[in-house]
Amino acid sequence: MIRILGIDPGLRRTGWGVIAVAGSRLSFVGCGCVESDASLSLAGRLRQLHDGLAGVLGAWTPDEAAVEETFVNKDAQATLKLGHARGIALLVPALAGLTVAEYAANQVKKTVVGVGHAEKAQIAAMIRVLLPLSNARTPDAADALAVAITHAHHRKSHGLLSRTLAEAAS
Amino acid sequence: MIRILGIDPGLRRTGWGVIAVAGSRLSFVGCGCVESDASLSLAGRLRQLHDGLAGVLGAWTPDEAAVEETFVNKDAQATLKLGHARGIALLVPALAGLTVAEYAANQVKKTVVGVGHAEKAQIAAMIRVLLPLSNARTPDAADALAVAITHAHHRKSHGLLSRTLAEAAS
Repeated sequence: MIRILGIDPGLRRTGWGVIAVAGSRLSFVGCGCVESDASLSLAGRLRQLHDGLAGVLGAWTPDEAAVEETFVNKDAQATLKLGHARGIALLVPALAGLTVAEYAANQVKKTVVGVGHAEKAQIAAMIRVLLPLSNARTPDAADALAVAITHAHHRKSHGLLSRTLAEAAS
Repeated sequence: MIRILGIDPGLRRTGWGVIAVAGSRLSFVGCGCVESDASLSLAGRLRQLHDGLAGVLGAWTPDEAAVEETFVNKDAQATLKLGHARGIALLVPALAGLTVAEYAANQVKKTVVGVGHAEKAQIAAMIRVLLPLSNARTPDAADALAVAITHAHHRKSHGLLSRTLAEAAS
């Protein structure tokens, strides 16, 4: 059995979710959000994200990590800010010695919901089906769990898990 | 006397420079480049930048840090990559408990050369005037020293240092 940490990075709020994978079985371990205080300096906010994610790694001891590839929008300043947060999301598991995979947002949606243009509500609904014990209260935490599931699926491509996902979607 | 670390962030190459400031006197302490290996994963490269900068902080024990505000170009993917590296550049001194200032590239040029549109060669020449003992061999290291000088100037606005800079420029 291995534990996978999924991260949905954002400067204001970074979602995280940990799942356990044993063969084709997925189970919920934990999820939540690390927030940064907008009144602090940018460096101070990045430190908050670092400390929060380091705490998650310490508490839930995942074996592998996966980070969502940020949607690049047209606002360069927003893209840069997101890049800062995403840098921390990639760094923290790497510092703990984990391999860190990356998945595009539409790949995550396609894996979990079946279509690349799924909406946040569809992801949240699918997370409730796939991980009935999940207590994800925010879209960020649900997205992070979806990233973890995507990694579980792709790390062993075409394994038994694809059947599990197909059955859940049908 | 305080030591200031300046950082010019980049994913492939992050320049760093440390200066000592005593009243209006500036002196060179050290400078160099931290590089990341393009054959590694993004998380692995960010870890290399983290480890390199953490080593610089350990070796040169600066009291304050300053990071150049990245030029935001029109290529969103390049902006995002730079954002990752810049996140690490801001994080590492913050983790060591330092305050981290940020300066726009044209503010750095204006402080060090006197004009906001100065070229890299002009910055390097001015660094040789202001810090005669500097052994900056790359534009990134010279830029990082320029960021440190900018912070020395602005942390005590309109102090004696402005006269030093004005005299050096004349």
